Amino acid sequence: MAQGKATLLISCIDRPGIIACVSNHLFTLGCNIITSDQYSDDEDGHFFWRIHFESLRLPVGELAKEFDASIPSLMPWERLRWHLFDASRRDRIVIMASRLPHCLMDLLSRHRFGELDGEVVGVVSNHPDLEPLARPFEVPFKVIPVLKDRKPESETALLKHLNELRADTVVLARYMQVLSGDFLRAWNKPIINIHHSFLPAFAGQRPHKQAHDKGVKLIGATAHYVTEELDAGPIIAQATTPMTHRDTVADLARMGKDLEVTVLANAVRAHLRKEVLLHHNRTIVFS
Amino acid sequence: MAQGKATLLISCIDRPGIIACVSNHLFTLGCNIITSDQYSDDEDGHFFWRIHFESLRLPVGELAKEFDASIPSLMPWERLRWHLFDASRRDRIVIMASRLPHCLMDLLSRHRFGELDGEVVGVVSNHPDLEPLARPFEVPFKVIPVLKDRKPESETALLKHLNELRADTVVLARYMQVLSGDFLRAWNKPIINIHHSFLPAFAGQRPHKQAHDKGVKLIGATAHYVTEELDAGPIIAQATTPMTHRDTVADLARMGKDLEVTVLANAVRAHLRKEVLLHHNRTIVFS
Amino acid sequence: MAQGKATLLISCIDRPGIIACVSNHLFTLGCNIITSDQYSDDEDGHFFWRIHFESLRLPVGELAKEFDASIPSLMPWERLRWHLFDASRRDRIVIMASRLPHCLMDLLSRHRFGELDGEVVGVVSNHPDLEPLARPFEVPFKVIPVLKDRKPESETALLKHLNELRADTVVLARYMQVLSGDFLRAWNKPIINIHHSFLPAFAGQRPHKQAHDKGVKLIGATAHYVTEELDAGPIIAQATTPMTHRDTVADLARMGKDLEVTVLANAVRAHLRKEVLLHHNRTIVFS
Amino acid sequence: MAQGKATLLISCIDRPGIIACVSNHLFTLGCNIITSDQYSDDEDGHFFWRIHFESLRLPVGELAKEFDASIPSLMPWERLRWHLFDASRRDRIVIMASRLPHCLMDLLSRHRFGELDGEVVGVVSNHPDLEPLARPFEVPFKVIPVLKDRKPESETALLKHLNELRADTVVLARYMQVLSGDFLRAWNKPIINIHHSFLPAFAGQRPHKQAHDKGVKLIGATAHYVTEELDAGPIIAQATTPMTHRDTVADLARMGKDLEVTVLANAVRAHLRKEVLLHHNRTIVFS
Repeated sequence: MAQGKATLLISCIDRPGIIACVSNHLFTLGCNIITSDQYSDDEDGHFFWRIHFESLRLPVGELAKEFDASIPSLMPWERLRWHLFDASRRDRIVIMASRLPHCLMDLLSRHRFGELDGEVVGVVSNHPDLEPLARPFEVPFKVIPVLKDRKPESETALLKHLNELRADTVVLARYMQVLSGDFLRAWNKPIINIHHSFLPAFAGQRPHKQAHDKGVKLIGATAHYVTEELDAGPIIAQATTPMTHRDTVADLARMGKDLEVTVLANAVRAHLRKEVLLHHNRTIVFS
Repeated sequence: MAQGKATLLISCIDRPGIIACVSNHLFTLGCNIITSDQYSDDEDGHFFWRIHFESLRLPVGELAKEFDASIPSLMPWERLRWHLFDASRRDRIVIMASRLPHCLMDLLSRHRFGELDGEVVGVVSNHPDLEPLARPFEVPFKVIPVLKDRKPESETALLKHLNELRADTVVLARYMQVLSGDFLRAWNKPIINIHHSFLPAFAGQRPHKQAHDKGVKLIGATAHYVTEELDAGPIIAQATTPMTHRDTVADLARMGKDLEVTVLANAVRAHLRKEVLLHHNRTIVFS
Repeated sequence: MAQGKATLLISCIDRPGIIACVSNHLFTLGCNIITSDQYSDDEDGHFFWRIHFESLRLPVGELAKEFDASIPSLMPWERLRWHLFDASRRDRIVIMASRLPHCLMDLLSRHRFGELDGEVVGVVSNHPDLEPLARPFEVPFKVIPVLKDRKPESETALLKHLNELRADTVVLARYMQVLSGDFLRAWNKPIINIHHSFLPAFAGQRPHKQAHDKGVKLIGATAHYVTEELDAGPIIAQATTPMTHRDTVADLARMGKDLEVTVLANAVRAHLRKEVLLHHNRTIVFS
Repeated sequence: MAQGKATLLISCIDRPGIIACVSNHLFTLGCNIITSDQYSDDEDGHFFWRIHFESLRLPVGELAKEFDASIPSLMPWERLRWHLFDASRRDRIVIMASRLPHCLMDLLSRHRFGELDGEVVGVVSNHPDLEPLARPFEVPFKVIPVLKDRKPESETALLKHLNELRADTVVLARYMQVLSGDFLRAWNKPIINIHHSFLPAFAGQRPHKQAHDKGVKLIGATAHYVTEELDAGPIIAQATTPMTHRDTVADLARMGKDLEVTVLANAVRAHLRKEVLLHHNRTIVFS
């Protein structure tokens, strides 16, 4: 009888014996590996490992204490970083959106039908428009307006709200305000954004207009972690779909929605399953 | 019994009656429309039309004279531009490549098996390496080396060679030298290039390295007309394929080849079929 | 000032002069062609044409009378069939779904945001489950249960309801009951279904299970018109997405939803815009 | 200093401790794991593992003897099967083709440019047509005609030839003859075929004609292992690309070539890298 499931993320400078050592330790502690994914970056010698396992003997909480005690001496490896996630402790998610409903509705729907390994604990918008559509999903909907010249006050209210909700992850589901560096540093937890272009092409304002004017033949969408530099954070997921000279900016908006919904959902899903690791300004996605 | 086939490209400021007028004129002259594609740009009011037809009564040469005589008075339309292409007069193509064989081999193979509406009259390379592979296709292979500090001499030789071959279109099938503005102005006919990224992202040198370092999740290829600004000419065709953190720059080079081959072939094919019209710095592709 | 917009669909055995004759007639009647798409089937000599235009002089209703009077003598062509659709007269759509919300929600959402050229006048389900989710969209939701051995009664009630709603088109948005031949003949108007496989592969029950057991590497979705033969009617739209050995039947259900939503929406959109013509058991889709 | 690289494939009924045991054993023997991929089939409890590693102490030949001696006692697991592949011992490949050059030329080109982990030791065709195109690649080209009513003699000659070449794997690169069950049983080594449809749809003769007549909106290609039942063996790779009503059977042949080339190359590459495992009539592809 399993005591619980957990995910272990490990990274360090690559060396012989890592897999033998860790898998042995897990076996000794009564853990059974369910899935294992690894990656070595040949350029800089880093090794990354994600192990999803069930603990047959110890509750995951006790296992964590055991790890804290044993890992430093057992694995005295260069640049070792590790993190154990208890699968029963689901991330608390806040979704932010402005006026376009497609990404918000899609995430709420996936949440309701059990597709996300996380708990949507709130929706925040700078407009009240989407509230009626969100209502059937029974998630608290909070309007925090962003007035010109009053952005710091809005961000203070937002930060307070996120903390009250004890949020772990924020998802910007077509939230059309740029979050300031001050806010990002104060919040200091993952924020996932969906941008409606194939980044790094067409960062910033009106990417569909930019794509139309450039005359590209594909429209894109990119989900990425938010960093201080606009639309430049580590990319988690991307997709494109064909467009032609016939497609107006309005057509691109319509066509882009299907892309955005899928790309954002895939990114959020991978993030919540702890399948995404950061490496330099890139992501390793084990899915 | 058809006297021949032809393609008519027309553009002008949109107005009522264009289709009635032209289709009537073609009917009167004994022409039967095979395919017809049109596009109106709502933003600037331009209308574009491609008509592929067979001439049942007149040889296409006589039809052209008839058009020259009648169109100015029959169609006194704002910004009217038209061009009649005799389908029996196939474009003469020169393919240029450096050391990578995939795009060159693919185009020669398509040519041999009758897929291109044009005649490959020569291959030019700055290296002799690809000559043995091209030999079975029985197309003249000319080496024009590009020595450091001697580029103008190379381009003079190239221009002379293209003129001797009476080339209509040049295809850069992974030709790794940048052609100068002087050369482009002197040549002044279409040049199609394949760039191994999703432009406008990763223009210039080593796009696969740029893509890898940025951590994008898709690799791209773009076929475009060459203009003086590097990798910025009108885009004809594009495609992408997924990549992951595991893919090294060498993997991207391998994976990218399939994209490049297909994208370049589609662009060349559309160009030769007179399906590509220019509009601002964009293309209209009727295919 | 335009009196209205309309779409004219024409098909006949191909012959010279069709385009000149029709475009001339439209011009004479004060109509300006906006888009024009044609197709000739070389195998059987059929010609198909879709013309979307604005009527500058006559209201579309009067234009229709004019057409009724003039076309038979003006176009005495073999197997001529034509239909004029008044763009101001939008199709009345009824969406049917069972327990899975994704396709229903997506269509209601597109309807609300003005993306469908039609009016959703009702939702019908054999279960009450989806009613709360549909409520914010303010479309009448009717539950018509289908009891074992009482299917004829259900279909009678359904037919009555559709007629009361004066529906033009029915969309089966993951409606899990098979409609009988008797019902289809009595209803005798278009029904669009979404099937979660790449038809003709995996018709019938549990296509994801079939795909998993066969070990294919792509999962598909197909939107088609319903005919008496199950999952064999004319195909309007299809798409696929990669799958691997890791994907369980439950994973395929999740992954398939994004495909189904997009494929069904594209098919419904093309149908409502009168871009879909039938030819043998195939479709011509002008989009 | 590495003594060599090798790939170990293991499958058995899943149980705790497999990874610890094997990775420990490899570590003890001085082996360093480079990549590791595993899969558990929850339905039937089977576990599959591919480990690519370098042997730092022992040459791979000695390592194999060590494995033969130790594994039975060390891993007395239910239904254990394992195979060690010495990476320096590359598969010997024979490519068979009929008259269409694209897949043959592509594989020869990839071989020449070092993309295949194998040695192309011969080409066999039932026609002489492709010999000139294959010549620059300097691989022996053998014509074995298949005369009506003399197929057994042809297959006897083929078998003899394959044995003389000491072939490990046969690739049917658009070879248009069906190999008999007698031949398959006598040969009894892997044969990879490319079929120009999305199997299981459109198995057998003229799949593009079948696709055209059915009116599907995607064209496909499937690479699979050959079994006695025609076009029904385990699928290794598949892809699709959009088609429309405009595409004739000839267009599909042209469009399909790009798909076939890529899908076959991906399948051959995965097979040669020992990334493909069989499970029931399905494949597990670790790539």
